[in-house]
Amino acid sequence: MNIPTEGKLLRIFIGEADRWHHQPLYEAIVHLARKEGMAGATAIKGFMGFGCKSHLHTTKLLRLSEDLPIIIEIVDSEEKINLFLPFLDEMVKEGLITLEKATVQMYRAG
Amino acid sequence: MNIPTEGKLLRIFIGEADRWHHQPLYEAIVHLARKEGMAGATAIKGFMGFGCKSHLHTTKLLRLSEDLPIIIEIVDSEEKINLFLPFLDEMVKEGLITLEKATVQMYRAG
Amino acid sequence: MNIPTEGKLLRIFIGEADRWHHQPLYEAIVHLARKEGMAGATAIKGFMGFGCKSHLHTTKLLRLSEDLPIIIEIVDSEEKINLFLPFLDEMVKEGLITLEKATVQMYRAG
Repeated sequence: MNIPTEGKLLRIFIGEADRWHHQPLYEAIVHLARKEGMAGATAIKGFMGFGCKSHLHTTKLLRLSEDLPIIIEIVDSEEKINLFLPFLDEMVKEGLITLEKATVQMYRAG
Repeated sequence: MNIPTEGKLLRIFIGEADRWHHQPLYEAIVHLARKEGMAGATAIKGFMGFGCKSHLHTTKLLRLSEDLPIIIEIVDSEEKINLFLPFLDEMVKEGLITLEKATVQMYRAG
Repeated sequence: MNIPTEGKLLRIFIGEADRWHHQPLYEAIVHLARKEGMAGATAIKGFMGFGCKSHLHTTKLLRLSEDLPIIIEIVDSEEKINLFLPFLDEMVKEGLITLEKATVQMYRAG
């Protein structure tokens, strides 16, 4: 296994219905992360939740099931994450962004 | 972007079949988090896993696919999280609850 | 509630199509975690993402929807996690593994 290195876990909490230039915001963020050469990105969909506006979204209510919570996770070095944050500042009009310490124990490409 | 502030990420690992007063426990927790004015909550469903009792739950076995693992994530200040923990102490009969440091990089309401 | 104890959150980012001895790799890892007596494991499926090889996987493209990103999360003591890492070193040919500090606030078995 590689020597563990200190990294950062960036987590972006947005809504499925959020848009960026006529495109789903989550899609725009994942594509940009790839274009900017980030180590990886994973988008996960929650089935229930609420955020900044405190509307409750749930798969149980049809009307609110089209804006389910989405979490995008990006792991990379602190430098790469810091270069990526200004894009998010522009793109994310509503949401929560957190940063956590994460030790990268293995990063292996086939 | 706002000035980053230190926060906490609370993660609650429970089962889909867990109940609280005839209601799904995950639903009760998300509703309570909203009522208590937490900044946000997201419920995610895993497709496979095991927990405290070590029964393996998976979408592959019909019998065990009705108690899939659920993770509820709540990000807020340490104070708000500490006020919320006693509720969980009462409601969660079986499960795992973790706390992690998380820097809140952005919290923006439309 | 129990006395909080310091633990570790191990997160394994792999692909749905990854195999280990003719078995899905995620399945092999969750089963092994159970066999080795880890406190719990949860496997989550992302709906979009890219990783080490930077191919973009998404539910929107049929061809790439069979290798969606998977995150396996395991919470346990540092010692137990350290004993589990060498297995992953052998099993995970491609992927990302991170370790984070996590305070175990509650671990309760029914």
